[in-house]
Amino acid sequence: MSIRLARRASEFQASAVREMLKLTARREVIPFGGGLPPAECLPAARLSSVLAELLHRQGAAALQYSTTEGVASLRERVAAWMGERAGVARSADEVLITTGSQQALDLAAKVFLDEGDAVFCEAPTYLAAISAFRSFGPRFVTVASDEQGMIPEALEEAVASCSRRKLIYVVPEFQNPSGRTWSRSRRLALLETARRFDLPVFEDSPYRELRFEGEDLPSIASLDTENRVVFASTFSKVLCPGLRVGWVAAAPPLLERFVLAKQGADLHTSTLCQLAVAGYLESYGLADHLERLRRVCRSRRDAMLGAVSRLLPSEVRASRPAGGLFLWLELPVGLSSRDWLKRSLECGAAFVPGDAFYPDGGGEHAARLCFSDTSEDRITEGIARLARALRQLPDAGRLSWPERAVA
Amino acid sequence: MSIRLARRASEFQASAVREMLKLTARREVIPFGGGLPPAECLPAARLSSVLAELLHRQGAAALQYSTTEGVASLRERVAAWMGERAGVARSADEVLITTGSQQALDLAAKVFLDEGDAVFCEAPTYLAAISAFRSFGPRFVTVASDEQGMIPEALEEAVASCSRRKLIYVVPEFQNPSGRTWSRSRRLALLETARRFDLPVFEDSPYRELRFEGEDLPSIASLDTENRVVFASTFSKVLCPGLRVGWVAAAPPLLERFVLAKQGADLHTSTLCQLAVAGYLESYGLADHLERLRRVCRSRRDAMLGAVSRLLPSEVRASRPAGGLFLWLELPVGLSSRDWLKRSLECGAAFVPGDAFYPDGGGEHAARLCFSDTSEDRITEGIARLARALRQLPDAGRLSWPERAVA
Repeated sequence: MSIRLARRASEFQASAVREMLKLTARREVIPFGGGLPPAECLPAARLSSVLAELLHRQGAAALQYSTTEGVASLRERVAAWMGERAGVARSADEVLITTGSQQALDLAAKVFLDEGDAVFCEAPTYLAAISAFRSFGPRFVTVASDEQGMIPEALEEAVASCSRRKLIYVVPEFQNPSGRTWSRSRRLALLETARRFDLPVFEDSPYRELRFEGEDLPSIASLDTENRVVFASTFSKVLCPGLRVGWVAAAPPLLERFVLAKQGADLHTSTLCQLAVAGYLESYGLADHLERLRRVCRSRRDAMLGAVSRLLPSEVRASRPAGGLFLWLELPVGLSSRDWLKRSLECGAAFVPGDAFYPDGGGEHAARLCFSDTSEDRITEGIARLARALRQLPDAGRLSWPERAVA
Repeated sequence: MSIRLARRASEFQASAVREMLKLTARREVIPFGGGLPPAECLPAARLSSVLAELLHRQGAAALQYSTTEGVASLRERVAAWMGERAGVARSADEVLITTGSQQALDLAAKVFLDEGDAVFCEAPTYLAAISAFRSFGPRFVTVASDEQGMIPEALEEAVASCSRRKLIYVVPEFQNPSGRTWSRSRRLALLETARRFDLPVFEDSPYRELRFEGEDLPSIASLDTENRVVFASTFSKVLCPGLRVGWVAAAPPLLERFVLAKQGADLHTSTLCQLAVAGYLESYGLADHLERLRRVCRSRRDAMLGAVSRLLPSEVRASRPAGGLFLWLELPVGLSSRDWLKRSLECGAAFVPGDAFYPDGGGEHAARLCFSDTSEDRITEGIARLARALRQLPDAGRLSWPERAVA
């Protein structure tokens, strides 16, 4: 038999991160490859009591079908929280609950992208957005970006020189993978370009609440006066990923397209999971949980930055993110992070090689390391293993290794 | 602003059923429009204890990210159950857990269908499959079907005369909406046609366990010797819909395409919901729950059939399904079920008009009524309301109304 698949199916690629998760299920590998919130912070006991309470009070209703848009009590809480914390002025009716924010990406592709349409994204950009969009056959146009976000002139030029431009996709806080946060002026410049070329912007904002230091910046959606921004976020990082509850917020005529796309995709997100999140927010709020989460993540970021500077050669450049889950490392030119990863897995540590975050090439010398789900001790041990692996690469001996580094 | 959407987005249509659910949220409307399992049968207390136990035992792991393929313990139980109950010989590795079986439909479209490809389906066919497939722009080719399933000659002719044939989609037991169950010989004929034209078959099997009478027939997948059949089912009808846990089973190289498509769609199905189903199966099994479910559904089917024959004119033909959730009514030629629905909503009862189940036209005289989530008394009252509504249609007075019908 030779069943013929859709053209797109031959382009499906396994996410490097997901495949990594499988490898690192071997306990002895230190898993800097994932993007998991700290297991210690997942509120199992509280959620257990929320679930018991809601199944007792609501019974069958918590287990029955519900509407595609989402459970009303959760949509209300999301709208209120998003308004308060990100300045996004959307009512409950302008919120669609999604099966994680990954689904929001899939729906955005369904709603916006025909085959061959151009989607503009940062360089590097979020891996799973690439994989969601790729199913719909767009052209990825990566835009030169620096520590402040996309470079306005580069965006302007990329958009102006491109036919069938359709969507701008950005992660403005503690970006995955680079850790960068967009400055206010870059946010405004982005909106100005979007306005001039009449383009929608998809603002993917999973990490906003994970700020360890510095001041919040206005979300792009809060600066938008033209209903141009689709804002998406999730409870995966601020509560727990295993419930798969995220959301997308947009002006009603556009949101309605997302709702219809979701109807075909999975009818609705788990009623029980939605009620569990709503119940958690009602009973506990997020403040104390977030405070602990930020403290743990910050301490791990510091541990990783410290280990990197103590154990890796000074030519290896590391980002210093003010929040989020990830460190971004850049090797000196000539060293390949895929080669490094291969040795690292043998030495018992994993990360995601940078090229996975460049849909049209690049990043061969970079690496994304997640610091959030590994204890400080293990982080140090993991970086030592990475150092050992790096030493095995050709030419690595010529780098400036710290004197006291463990070989 | 005039944001340009994907071409497909202008074709998105609200599912008549989901829109109905919204209307019928008004308590006074008797909701024959849904497809809900009986609320009385949803095992809230048992699931509450399963959830408490698993959050106690597994803690954070139940709330963390998990693999796209699904939780191992659930995949194993699904494989065993599917083998035992449907004769489908697939190992745990050949099972992908999906976010309801709706997602299996969306993934099938992603994996198989390019724009303009032909998908062959029954007439009528499942509404939400139409909406999942439609996002990918196929041509729907409906195949004449009778009480035994697709008519083999009609299928053969449709496939032979069609270019870009890609997929056959069927619901072989207690089909939604017609209630029909395919005979064994029709199943074999389908496989023979699929073999001759080298086509994959998507067997959508959500209702198989809801048989009230008669003997199980072999699933199409169990008759397949060529790895041609993709088998999908769900816990929505046999346990509860609100967890959104379904699955798809296929030979490894094909299943891998589904896994990659799912990775982009929502990363994975709720870890907690998957563990809840696995825990329920481990602690309770499904036997006693299914027995109760079948008893309740059967009694409601009987109540609806009785009310239809007592209260509606003899020209209204009703199916007599041996299982499942739905009755299919056909009005005499000249009467429109959309008109009937409009009057019915005024009279306080809802159903889904038949044309929603014909992707390329037809069914204007038919109606799908769900009997499973309404008590016997309310079923009788609902059918009386439908009778009252029908009388208001032009020409309805000339039908053979039962003498003692309530006007």
